[in-house]
Amino acid sequence: MAAGAVLGKFSRALLKLTDTCNSFTVSGSSQSEYHPFCVGGSQVGLIPRNVWKHLIDYPDVFTVSGSEESGSSLAIKDIYKTVNERTDAVATVLADLRQKDVFVCLKGWRDELYDVRTTFAEAPLLAIERSSTGLFGTVQYGVHINGYCRKNDQLMMWIARRSKTKQTYPGLLDNMCAGGLSSGLGVRECAIKECEEEASVPMELFSGLNQTGCISYIYEDERGFFPECEYTFDMLLPDTFTPVNSDGEVSHFELMSMEKVKEMIIGEEFKPNSALVIVDFLIRHGLITTDNEPNLCHLIEMMHVPLQKFYKTGSVF
Amino acid sequence: MAAGAVLGKFSRALLKLTDTCNSFTVSGSSQSEYHPFCVGGSQVGLIPRNVWKHLIDYPDVFTVSGSEESGSSLAIKDIYKTVNERTDAVATVLADLRQKDVFVCLKGWRDELYDVRTTFAEAPLLAIERSSTGLFGTVQYGVHINGYCRKNDQLMMWIARRSKTKQTYPGLLDNMCAGGLSSGLGVRECAIKECEEEASVPMELFSGLNQTGCISYIYEDERGFFPECEYTFDMLLPDTFTPVNSDGEVSHFELMSMEKVKEMIIGEEFKPNSALVIVDFLIRHGLITTDNEPNLCHLIEMMHVPLQKFYKTGSVF
Repeated sequence: MAAGAVLGKFSRALLKLTDTCNSFTVSGSSQSEYHPFCVGGSQVGLIPRNVWKHLIDYPDVFTVSGSEESGSSLAIKDIYKTVNERTDAVATVLADLRQKDVFVCLKGWRDELYDVRTTFAEAPLLAIERSSTGLFGTVQYGVHINGYCRKNDQLMMWIARRSKTKQTYPGLLDNMCAGGLSSGLGVRECAIKECEEEASVPMELFSGLNQTGCISYIYEDERGFFPECEYTFDMLLPDTFTPVNSDGEVSHFELMSMEKVKEMIIGEEFKPNSALVIVDFLIRHGLITTDNEPNLCHLIEMMHVPLQKFYKTGSVF
Repeated sequence: MAAGAVLGKFSRALLKLTDTCNSFTVSGSSQSEYHPFCVGGSQVGLIPRNVWKHLIDYPDVFTVSGSEESGSSLAIKDIYKTVNERTDAVATVLADLRQKDVFVCLKGWRDELYDVRTTFAEAPLLAIERSSTGLFGTVQYGVHINGYCRKNDQLMMWIARRSKTKQTYPGLLDNMCAGGLSSGLGVRECAIKECEEEASVPMELFSGLNQTGCISYIYEDERGFFPECEYTFDMLLPDTFTPVNSDGEVSHFELMSMEKVKEMIIGEEFKPNSALVIVDFLIRHGLITTDNEPNLCHLIEMMHVPLQKFYKTGSVF
């Protein structure tokens, strides 16, 4: 496509998708809208302003550095030194906030802990309740598995329809399997667990489960700030395999042509980050190229925003 | 690998490699070290401070906004309205600077034009001599082709040794083929041209040339600032094919096991951005995963720094 040409439907959908997944911005005026969250001297999160005012009500657990105006930060007090001590201290605060019904997100309490760390390579500093991560803006990690096969030489992808009873994005389309990385779980271990629970993939097929990198992005909604890194996997399946859900999180699966998958992305039928995982698949497999997508490098950059460096150093370059 | 474990040689080499390719930083104090370069009201480059003082000596072509201290920018004067007028005006300046022997980089004059634009999706605003891009910090685009095959079920990669007479990185290892995107050339067209010239790939093999995305990074050296976006291609070759150089830019080719390729990356035998292209290949093909690389997501983010958004908006989030 020539530069300056009118963008097609799919290209417009992709620009909107990467914007949706990156709705949070730290540039300009929004800087005053959040406060760094620190543990043991390292930044691990971004606290939205409307959350801040509630957290500073717990001076036994949190301490404030600087003034709110000059860009203050919140830290877990140094008296909590171990992972367990910090985890317990924050859990007490969250239990109290949940009981007081202060935050909508805590209505979706999961009883599942997510590790909190500066970068993925470093040891966790504490763990927090999954439904609370948006309050602290800590990086969430997860896995997404593209299950695909070749039928009559055509590439086809297994797409899940999320159950209508899911807490988040009910009824939307999704990758064959996906899930958050609970505290203590390995990345590949988590991918295998999700394949077993969500799609009943038998053990002998896991030799075809290939990690292919990750996507990263940062968005905000009424629940808070969500910097996320999703490790991606491709799984080439025999065309005789049909996924069957066994945990109630998927209403049904459909085997779609890549053209149909694209139509569903255009129609905003997908959970946004799951659509992003498919876009990454389409790029890696040579189906989105500079021949059909003028914004290719922009899209790729917006699917890999530098969360690790930002949290570590406060800057991206 | 457990978090906090001692990093292996390859992991340390990868961290060093992504740092080398991203040696430029726009955060903190270095902001005073460059000035935006604008054309038609849009930023298209970053001018190093030591270059700035020479360019402002050409007030017929360039105009300064703001003071140097407050963060001024340089723009091509509005009287130059068309691509050709801007191209000719800058060419006149560069010819004069070359004749005066002000910049080392212009000793490598290529007589080859690179398009300059805000983002790749937009129409070029002008074109400048290839050897001068570091003076203006405009984004350079190029193509890199991973030529690989399977021998006895083992993945092997064709690696080029750059000619000792190359202007840049003489004698270092490189991808099978690579090259800069000259003004007016299409991305796939450029990849095919490089495959033909550098490796004598016959026409019938180009159906196996698959675009797989891009990498982006920004470094600085004595020649200036280099924001670069390299479109990547994988080319699965028959194991009977042997590349033969026909343009004198490659001294010889070697078919290496992926283990040997990794050793060469550790030994810093590669041109840095070409090593990065191979790291991207290893990640996409499941050979670098969270099982063997704790910094995986950091590395991926540093291989896709948001140049497009930064040049368009001045910020990355």
